[in-house]
Amino acid sequence: MAAFSEFRPLSDSALMVEYIKSTPALSSKLGDQFDDLDIKEVGDGNLNFVYIVVGSSGSLVIKQAIPYIRCIGESWPMTKERAYFETRALREHGHLCPDHVPEVYHFDRTMCLIGMRYLEPPHIILRKGLIAGLVYPLLAEHMSEYMAHTLFHTSLLYHTTTDHKSAVAEFCGNVELCRLTEQVVFSDPYKVSQYNRWTTPYLDGDAKAVREDNTLKLEVAELKSMFCERAQALIHGDLHTGSVMVTQVSTQVIDPEFAFYGPMGFDVGAYLGNLILSFFSQEGHANEENDRKDCKEWILRTIGETWNLFEMKFVALWNKHKEGYGEAYLPAIYNNSELLQLVQRKFMTDLFHDTLGFGSAKMIRRIVGVAHVEDFESIQDASRRADCERKALNFAKMLMKERRKFQSIEDVVLAIRDVQ
Amino acid sequence: MAAFSEFRPLSDSALMVEYIKSTPALSSKLGDQFDDLDIKEVGDGNLNFVYIVVGSSGSLVIKQAIPYIRCIGESWPMTKERAYFETRALREHGHLCPDHVPEVYHFDRTMCLIGMRYLEPPHIILRKGLIAGLVYPLLAEHMSEYMAHTLFHTSLLYHTTTDHKSAVAEFCGNVELCRLTEQVVFSDPYKVSQYNRWTTPYLDGDAKAVREDNTLKLEVAELKSMFCERAQALIHGDLHTGSVMVTQVSTQVIDPEFAFYGPMGFDVGAYLGNLILSFFSQEGHANEENDRKDCKEWILRTIGETWNLFEMKFVALWNKHKEGYGEAYLPAIYNNSELLQLVQRKFMTDLFHDTLGFGSAKMIRRIVGVAHVEDFESIQDASRRADCERKALNFAKMLMKERRKFQSIEDVVLAIRDVQ
Ligand SMILES: Nc1ncnc2c1ncn2[C@@H]1O[C@H](COP(=O)(O)OP(=O)(O)O)[C@@H](O)[C@H]1O
Ligand SMILES: Nc1ncnc2c1ncn2[C@@H]1O[C@H](COP(=O)(O)OP(=O)(O)O)[C@@H](O)[C@H]1O
Ligand SMILES: [Mg+2]
Ligand SMILES: [Mg+2]
Ligand SMILES: [Mg+2]
Ligand SMILES: [Mg+2]
Ligand SMILES: [Mg+2]
Repeated sequence: MAAFSEFRPLSDSALMVEYIKSTPALSSKLGDQFDDLDIKEVGDGNLNFVYIVVGSSGSLVIKQAIPYIRCIGESWPMTKERAYFETRALREHGHLCPDHVPEVYHFDRTMCLIGMRYLEPPHIILRKGLIAGLVYPLLAEHMSEYMAHTLFHTSLLYHTTTDHKSAVAEFCGNVELCRLTEQVVFSDPYKVSQYNRWTTPYLDGDAKAVREDNTLKLEVAELKSMFCERAQALIHGDLHTGSVMVTQVSTQVIDPEFAFYGPMGFDVGAYLGNLILSFFSQEGHANEENDRKDCKEWILRTIGETWNLFEMKFVALWNKHKEGYGEAYLPAIYNNSELLQLVQRKFMTDLFHDTLGFGSAKMIRRIVGVAHVEDFESIQDASRRADCERKALNFAKMLMKERRKFQSIEDVVLAIRDVQ
Repeated sequence: MAAFSEFRPLSDSALMVEYIKSTPALSSKLGDQFDDLDIKEVGDGNLNFVYIVVGSSGSLVIKQAIPYIRCIGESWPMTKERAYFETRALREHGHLCPDHVPEVYHFDRTMCLIGMRYLEPPHIILRKGLIAGLVYPLLAEHMSEYMAHTLFHTSLLYHTTTDHKSAVAEFCGNVELCRLTEQVVFSDPYKVSQYNRWTTPYLDGDAKAVREDNTLKLEVAELKSMFCERAQALIHGDLHTGSVMVTQVSTQVIDPEFAFYGPMGFDVGAYLGNLILSFFSQEGHANEENDRKDCKEWILRTIGETWNLFEMKFVALWNKHKEGYGEAYLPAIYNNSELLQLVQRKFMTDLFHDTLGFGSAKMIRRIVGVAHVEDFESIQDASRRADCERKALNFAKMLMKERRKFQSIEDVVLAIRDVQ
């Protein structure tokens, strides 16, 4: 494969075909038929190039990282090694939760290229489904399954200290992506930054208020420290609704290039926070055809069910493996059911509060930071959009500051309703 | 140096001389004079062999790790790679605080051997000085300096994320020593373990009570998680009063073989916890010659001064470097003195509570766990010893459970006095 002995973008179709032909793990997925290949670049994400390759006898997706951030350009360099960590995480999480992670067929470190299962139509990005007002009855079940399995099994509740520390060490290598999160989630929204933007002029005062809110800055500092220091589990690292592809019966989590050992609450919070953003955006999409009431109710129910199912499944895994290799809570110490319940309740309460904290940070940054969400962006009328965004922003600010007072996800849902 | 191309213990003096002769960094410290060398093994520690080498024209110390825990024997294997991490920490901390860390002359990874400055008499181990009822007027000044500099400069208050994560990754390699701490500090005292011991029969009920105290077990689980997961700074990892050598004018910290990126409070707590143990042991050493009253007062004063000076120096370093490379609190965000003071107060309060938590864990394990402290062990009368130990144990249990209620070190000192 001398032609690909050093990195080159596969933007040219002929080159792509050549690459696939020379890679048995890929060509076999196409039944070695290359005559009528349809190759389409579909990367609507912020960072990478994604090619769908469909032939008469099979299909696959090629994702390739480039040495900068796609949506910004070469002025913001970013290691293409991220493809390695994405692959590691896809494989690890895929092993733990095969039903909800696409299979990796092939990885090429030199080319920063992943070959994986094509999530064929009707799979669409969850965010787009939510914007269209669609509902997904199995979503809470599936996403709680994914989060419970991936987070539990990569934590010290399941790992030995030895395995944990060596995995932590390896994912320390994904530091550039961690730094990017630190900047765009925990820093930029709270200061003047060239990359920040918001629905101006409507939210000028709101953005300024964020930058001048001492209490908020105190809270976000604590969350940032936890993000930087706490190696609790192998987290996805970018688990918003744009990293989930869905049909009515299937839920698939893609794009874990930000994966590293970090706090569990960052994943759960990112996901729930993006559902809450979707909720607040619905008002902006309501029209005479569809008032979005059912959809909004479904989102609130899904938020509640996702956390409650997650908690239930996580604790069930804990109970199932309580005599296993995990070194966090030794059975000889946590040796009676009253005590075990006590530590589990404390663990889940702390994780719940972390989730609310990180979730609110992720909401705030999507309204006054660099990367916005299509849920709001697709609301054409700027004033109407700003109204939705302001409600979400105010809710997120309150949630970050008051998160420790919330006892249950039902309390959170009630508070969301209160905003209306 | 073919003779030393693989690991061998240097227990034989002739071999030791041969080794030194073949190692310029060591032989030069002896002025290349080998005729009248005095070689003495003085390892009174639990893990390694320490040789003092004194000649007519110089001196040095050789510390060698062996592949098991010395005080237990070959039945408890322990990686001799610990010498590598000890050297890394001695050099890093020595660079940050040269006045209080002995210079490393030489490190041999194959031989697991460190050559370092001989801390010549009247240097003695601080613990032994405290047992003898001696006082050290500069101790609080020096130890607060050591802790403030080593902890601040290896945290994200000073490091970039990039430097931090790569250092964290490297010290993940010291996992066997971390596991040992997890076991003997956070686990064994709270369960039946063959290695546990206590002053029997006097403390039989007390040891049992620890094993049956659900609230205590809940708290120690939280501390253990923080120890395992939180890469806050390069900590010494074994900072008890047996890892400090002192004279009236000099304070030197040795033996950081447990070093890794962990919570700062583990170091500060280990040190203060051991001072508190010393305080409670004094009653057992009081006699007609010396009622230990002055010494006890000095210990309490030193506890207070150590924390207060540490806090002052730590915050001063923070202020000095607030526009530096550290990525935890960006100056553009924490941009007014009111806010900066707010985050600093929160940071120091959290660190204070971590310190009290880890300090109490370290106290408890020294009374009902495998490794005891000479402060108590040297009290001949078992009943008298048990009385001292029980007071310390009860204080530690209370402190672990109630630590978040303490506002200042003065409150802690008052609570210690209350035990009397
Ligand atoms: N396995 C796949 N099957 C089908 N479509 C995919 C697949 N992976 C990615 N895509 C499409 O490509 C888009 C970008 O992929 P993503 O992994 O999110 O890239 P980025 O890292 O640039 O955000 C997704 O939003 C989705 O539409
Ligand atoms: N640099 C030194 N100078 C003088 N004595 C030392 C020095 N290093 C160690 N020692 C002596 O050796 C003993 C054991 O050393 P230490 O490093 O604590 O070993 P261990 O890791 O086995 O606990 C110390 O208690 C001290 O008496
Ligand atoms: Mg994406
Ligand atoms: Mg399943
Ligand atoms: Mg991505
Ligand atoms: Mg020692
Ligand atoms: Mg030691």
